[in-house]
Amino acid sequence: MKAAIMGYGTIGSGVARVLSENRDIIKAHALDDIELKYVLDVRDFPGDPINEKIVHDYKVIVDDPEVKLVVETMGGVEPAYTFVDAMLRAGKNVATSNKALVAAKGAEFIATAKENNVNFMFEASVGGGIPIIRVILKCVTGDEIESIYGIVNGTTNYMLSAMAEKDVSFDEVLKEAQSLGYAEKDPTADVEGFDAARKIAILTSLAAGRQVDFEDFPTEGITKIEKADIAFAKENGMKVKLIAAMDKSGDSYFVRVAPFLVSKESPLFAVDGVMNAILVRGNMLGDSMYYGSGAGSLPTASAVVGDLVEEARHVNKHVDFTWEPSKVKLLDPDEQSFRYYVRKGTECHITGMMKEHDFLSGEGKDCDHFIRLL
Amino acid sequence: MKAAIMGYGTIGSGVARVLSENRDIIKAHALDDIELKYVLDVRDFPGDPINEKIVHDYKVIVDDPEVKLVVETMGGVEPAYTFVDAMLRAGKNVATSNKALVAAKGAEFIATAKENNVNFMFEASVGGGIPIIRVILKCVTGDEIESIYGIVNGTTNYMLSAMAEKDVSFDEVLKEAQSLGYAEKDPTADVEGFDAARKIAILTSLAAGRQVDFEDFPTEGITKIEKADIAFAKENGMKVKLIAAMDKSGDSYFVRVAPFLVSKESPLFAVDGVMNAILVRGNMLGDSMYYGSGAGSLPTASAVVGDLVEEARHVNKHVDFTWEPSKVKLLDPDEQSFRYYVRKGTECHITGMMKEHDFLSGEGKDCDHFIRLL
Repeated sequence: MKAAIMGYGTIGSGVARVLSENRDIIKAHALDDIELKYVLDVRDFPGDPINEKIVHDYKVIVDDPEVKLVVETMGGVEPAYTFVDAMLRAGKNVATSNKALVAAKGAEFIATAKENNVNFMFEASVGGGIPIIRVILKCVTGDEIESIYGIVNGTTNYMLSAMAEKDVSFDEVLKEAQSLGYAEKDPTADVEGFDAARKIAILTSLAAGRQVDFEDFPTEGITKIEKADIAFAKENGMKVKLIAAMDKSGDSYFVRVAPFLVSKESPLFAVDGVMNAILVRGNMLGDSMYYGSGAGSLPTASAVVGDLVEEARHVNKHVDFTWEPSKVKLLDPDEQSFRYYVRKGTECHITGMMKEHDFLSGEGKDCDHFIRLL
Repeated sequence: MKAAIMGYGTIGSGVARVLSENRDIIKAHALDDIELKYVLDVRDFPGDPINEKIVHDYKVIVDDPEVKLVVETMGGVEPAYTFVDAMLRAGKNVATSNKALVAAKGAEFIATAKENNVNFMFEASVGGGIPIIRVILKCVTGDEIESIYGIVNGTTNYMLSAMAEKDVSFDEVLKEAQSLGYAEKDPTADVEGFDAARKIAILTSLAAGRQVDFEDFPTEGITKIEKADIAFAKENGMKVKLIAAMDKSGDSYFVRVAPFLVSKESPLFAVDGVMNAILVRGNMLGDSMYYGSGAGSLPTASAVVGDLVEEARHVNKHVDFTWEPSKVKLLDPDEQSFRYYVRKGTECHITGMMKEHDFLSGEGKDCDHFIRLL
């Protein structure tokens, strides 16, 4: 079976490497050999053996009926959207790691895939190598999923872990993360929580079977976290974590991304550094957690290849699941109750359980900073 | 679609409850309604609404062509083997939570299921509600699985956690666990490691695609763990955990169940009480961990129902995977190197990395107790 990769960056080149190094194992699972035929990229790679597979026009892939599996690892919505849409309509299965594309166009692509009797899979778009999408779609299927709390951004988790370990400020740790390659030059998407927001939007859409747009729920990053907050957490046996959270209430959902204070009792407490973990609560299963590398070339590529294996086993057979384009009902975040850590000057304390507007008009009024408790 | 449950004990009654309480959610995932038609048990349940579904002869289920899904939650190898074999040959899909049956007859049942174009699934047989079987078969499929280290027995994990927290002896904590219902009256299968051995035998068989018998690798329980061992672990920032371990080496495997000293750096360190967790290392994915309730009526039933949903989506279509009856090559455990904690009298220390026979003829000679380090 022939495959193509669109976008030969960090993840795309990882996919090529996994396909090559694990070829025998992949063949055993896929029940067929998966052979890379094309790599689409704007660049050439002279001297690299991959160069003979490089094409610059996506239509070469569209027009080749031998190619049944296409990987999209370009990132961003365009031109990825145009290319993926064309591949699905040409009867090719697509696997992507592109969370921006999935968050924006997932429901549409699933419908297009169904119409064309192919598959659109996106395991690598959330949690890198952690198989959280398949857990939701194929494992926790006898349960009502009551909540999902995830540490789904490795950059911010690394930064928060480093702030706690080394007693350094946000600005210092950001510089360090950038020099180590854990944070991008423009770190906005990570530190403002937008990356995590897209991921919880995808997971909630899958759990609910309907669209959730990340613009429709509150997203707060970690830029306001100060040394005093981290110190308070530490003294009280807690940690500050950036959590992407979904809570189901009736047929509706509370969704938010925000820093939370996490206590030792939570399985998320021990998740440090660049690692990711997602805690899923089912009404029968109780708590389960899925932990691993949330990013990185090979772990993410491993998840993409897992999708290719599944697609190779279902060529010409759409595997049905529900992600309708109609929107899920999101609840007013003010109506969700939490306990709050609140800092005024050098005074810090933790409140009782209350709704946000009550907190903000009471104990939280004029505070310097507050953080919800998980 | 009609279903039957064989064995109305803790797990079987949980399955009936999940099917009833989550009926709508299950229907949405299974793309069909799953209705419980029969419950096979030697007992009657007068006054319980389930009583009208009770049958005492498994042939009533075999002979009813309407029943496509059968749950086996009886435990033990016979008569479960006879009943499951008859169901598969009658064209019915089977889901089981019975690790003894799966460890002994898994390869055979998979072949029988294939011949009869049905499915034999057993997600609940390892790790209760943790979807570890599907993770190995359907998710980590682009990777060579290099190792699996699992805390897969809740009873012993509860006991070891309690010994560390309360500074009590093995005998005291066993009595407590029995009074809480966490340990059985005859605790042998748990405390001697036999339960964990069956589970790692199943996981290794799936990772290797061939049979592993638990009688063929070393199994050691927790009965020799003394307060001094726990105290040493604690002082050195470690914990004693009963680990079911598989390491791949070439085409062969080291498999063992034994207590290990686990350091803070391991994601297994924080897994306490009755919880289970399984750490899977892939050659591309790196470390990933799956955490949840390893036992209990509803979490285990949730996993059984997940299998029923998957089977309902694949009626008259065998989902292929490999578990050959021929045996995997197991390696001589003496050839695997570890660091060892060793106690002689009141003296404790940790050795360098060495093979077991070197340790036992050297530093470990005449010691009172030793524990491997993870």
